[in-house]
Amino acid sequence: MVQTDNRPRVAWIAGVGASAGLGAALGRRFAREGFTVALTGRTRERIEAVVDEIRRTGGDALALPGDVTSESEMAVIAAQIAQAGALEAAVFNAGNSSSARLLDLGAAQFESVWRAGTLGGLIFGKEAVRAMLAAAGGSLLFTGATASLRGRPPFAAFAASKAALRSLSQSFAREFGPQGVHVAHVIIDGGIDGERLRQAAPQRIEASGGDGLLQPDEIADAYWRLHQQPRSAWSQEIDLRPYNESF
Amino acid sequence: MVQTDNRPRVAWIAGVGASAGLGAALGRRFAREGFTVALTGRTRERIEAVVDEIRRTGGDALALPGDVTSESEMAVIAAQIAQAGALEAAVFNAGNSSSARLLDLGAAQFESVWRAGTLGGLIFGKEAVRAMLAAAGGSLLFTGATASLRGRPPFAAFAASKAALRSLSQSFAREFGPQGVHVAHVIIDGGIDGERLRQAAPQRIEASGGDGLLQPDEIADAYWRLHQQPRSAWSQEIDLRPYNESF
Amino acid sequence: MVQTDNRPRVAWIAGVGASAGLGAALGRRFAREGFTVALTGRTRERIEAVVDEIRRTGGDALALPGDVTSESEMAVIAAQIAQAGALEAAVFNAGNSSSARLLDLGAAQFESVWRAGTLGGLIFGKEAVRAMLAAAGGSLLFTGATASLRGRPPFAAFAASKAALRSLSQSFAREFGPQGVHVAHVIIDGGIDGERLRQAAPQRIEASGGDGLLQPDEIADAYWRLHQQPRSAWSQEIDLRPYNESF
Amino acid sequence: MVQTDNRPRVAWIAGVGASAGLGAALGRRFAREGFTVALTGRTRERIEAVVDEIRRTGGDALALPGDVTSESEMAVIAAQIAQAGALEAAVFNAGNSSSARLLDLGAAQFESVWRAGTLGGLIFGKEAVRAMLAAAGGSLLFTGATASLRGRPPFAAFAASKAALRSLSQSFAREFGPQGVHVAHVIIDGGIDGERLRQAAPQRIEASGGDGLLQPDEIADAYWRLHQQPRSAWSQEIDLRPYNESF
Repeated sequence: MVQTDNRPRVAWIAGVGASAGLGAALGRRFAREGFTVALTGRTRERIEAVVDEIRRTGGDALALPGDVTSESEMAVIAAQIAQAGALEAAVFNAGNSSSARLLDLGAAQFESVWRAGTLGGLIFGKEAVRAMLAAAGGSLLFTGATASLRGRPPFAAFAASKAALRSLSQSFAREFGPQGVHVAHVIIDGGIDGERLRQAAPQRIEASGGDGLLQPDEIADAYWRLHQQPRSAWSQEIDLRPYNESF
Repeated sequence: MVQTDNRPRVAWIAGVGASAGLGAALGRRFAREGFTVALTGRTRERIEAVVDEIRRTGGDALALPGDVTSESEMAVIAAQIAQAGALEAAVFNAGNSSSARLLDLGAAQFESVWRAGTLGGLIFGKEAVRAMLAAAGGSLLFTGATASLRGRPPFAAFAASKAALRSLSQSFAREFGPQGVHVAHVIIDGGIDGERLRQAAPQRIEASGGDGLLQPDEIADAYWRLHQQPRSAWSQEIDLRPYNESF
Repeated sequence: MVQTDNRPRVAWIAGVGASAGLGAALGRRFAREGFTVALTGRTRERIEAVVDEIRRTGGDALALPGDVTSESEMAVIAAQIAQAGALEAAVFNAGNSSSARLLDLGAAQFESVWRAGTLGGLIFGKEAVRAMLAAAGGSLLFTGATASLRGRPPFAAFAASKAALRSLSQSFAREFGPQGVHVAHVIIDGGIDGERLRQAAPQRIEASGGDGLLQPDEIADAYWRLHQQPRSAWSQEIDLRPYNESF
Repeated sequence: MVQTDNRPRVAWIAGVGASAGLGAALGRRFAREGFTVALTGRTRERIEAVVDEIRRTGGDALALPGDVTSESEMAVIAAQIAQAGALEAAVFNAGNSSSARLLDLGAAQFESVWRAGTLGGLIFGKEAVRAMLAAAGGSLLFTGATASLRGRPPFAAFAASKAALRSLSQSFAREFGPQGVHVAHVIIDGGIDGERLRQAAPQRIEASGGDGLLQPDEIADAYWRLHQQPRSAWSQEIDLRPYNESF
């Protein structure tokens, strides 16, 4: 939680896809608090749909499509954000899940998962931190998963990518915390009631009875609470799971 | 976060000592939200002072002194709480720090630290859960420390006690989460700007520049946020530390 | 691995029960290497049976029955060991498993598990370290379990006890490693093909096909390897599990 | 520990550099046990020097230079190994340390560290497992570091790479353990008395008094012990550090 100058406060969310997903929910949440939300993702149409949705409810949002794995694209977006206001919160929510038995997991697939899920976190995080250090600090939040803590087939690529991202979040925290940037990592442990699951396993949503799955809006609320923490009591890592999740 | 019947909502805090400490801050925080706060600790005078303070600001508080290591005393207090309303939040904040080189650490001292810090957590937790299962669920929160995660001299007794309490919090979470009781463990990593440090190392408070130490009111706020989490997105463990803490 | 004077080298094993168990296997293993093995456990008859077995195969063994939770009994045994030779290896293998739903877990049962499993570790460890510091160092090894790392019903008492013992092993390691005492913790993850399982679940032994369960003699071998490590490359923690164990 | 057919038993070591390093020590260790050791590394001259050294002492060794980050090069080497005998042990010891403040850490440097340290582990591990599944099983061992467990500046790239490798080792273990491949991860915590440190900080070697640093031959011995473990009692992870290392 920082106090910025009187320019608009900006929250930058990377990894925005469908309106039903976590990225969109994060955009809505920060918009509701008066932030200008800058939304980044690979698919312009999807981002613009979320921007429209936020604007219709009176919020301020920008569609800044781009690839988190590209240093140059992220630098351009960061410059656009600097025009729009003072970056105060940044959430790295990009990444691909992926599933393969190890003997079928090629270097190209492994690299692709790492690019989006880990390298993107570095590139995004650096741009966010640069902007925050130039202002009054801010929050840099990373989305993790159960797989961040353990490798297990058939999710070897995803788990390796997430373990590296978690390590990176710790390096960011240790380096920039003392300079006023709050870096936190959120371990999401359980199914999300979002588009991915709705398509892949609709019966699981039905079986969950509503709150047996993580609701994107409620996850987004937890990120907002992290952003609000005063700097004398920051969390570096929290987990989130539904009440009936086995763990 | 639960919805209880129309009896008063009660928050029970164990391990309440000086007004400047975390236990008292937790009492004030839940009282501010309209809870009747039941305060338990070993020293009647200290608890009554906190109760008076809460009442002076319009809150509702009960002094229920007692020893968390005594099953019978805790059962009596739990019965008193049942009279006062519906228990919705319970915080186990008891425990003694302790310092000794291992060869000087006698069985009696080791046991004493375990009684207050671990056994008390079991006894308190069981009473809290029993009351919550009879109502609509609730939150059971445990206070941990850096030492919960690693044993290190001269804090062997304290660390062993805290590691066991953390394990216990996981057992409570896994057993009672699916029944609607939110069990969470808070790892407090860093100095608290409370009475203990004020007496032991006042220069450290001065050097911290205000927000370089954990403020009890801000820690208490983090507990309150945990209590508010919807059951589709519960945290089982969070850490809290000042922005400039080395970790 | 230490070089002692020309007195007999002694290995002290606490937690010795049935001949088919790990404690007895540890005794046999160190005896085979020429150690005088001092065996401690609660039941004199069981220990004497193991001593007889070791002597019949040409080894040197002492039955030193006693209760690890008693400081005075352990001091007496430590004095007997000092008479017998130079203590070079000590293994804490005591502890009770225990199973109960949390609401049925009384303070007495919780305390009993902690006494044998954690307090005993402190008392034993201190006696062992005192003897080793007076000589040329040595190894102090603790037996852990899957439960050392996570609390889970219905093993809340056992897990809390083991988590505390693990923490204690770290405190011992950090305090006495630099003085030449190698302290290590062994996480045994999986069923042991020992007396307990033979009685409780004989079908599981049959289903395991021989090496799908941990063999006490092979676990004991891992402890021996830990003892042999040179002080430039000590392990503080290792895990052990059968090849087909799910984890 | 496996029993292979009567072809020569092969140990494949990737990440072999200077004779004073861990890779070379691993080669010597397995050669001493009668293995044909296949040594892989980037610099042909360095590998050939180690091969010569092993042959002079009567061992059997092959120089198989190559880049672990290349699927095709590793496939060629695996085919050469299959000609030489039955692969029974494989050690992934490649990787670059690297140091940079996060704002100076470019995508190219981050990627380079990941390629050698993580992607190489996948490619090497798959080739090794394929060969072992075709025979009677074997051991696949990965070299980790303190940084595997925590991210910390200025080692963000190295730590992220090592955290991912650790995760990968767990995925390999969970997928192939039940098929008879022992996968283990060794966390080396402390300075190694090898060429890197001799050049970078010779005073640290002097100050260590000989066994205050990890000796490559003794680390190699720990890997050999892992290979020898029977499949009823496998370690998935061990740590190694000098007796006087602070941790």
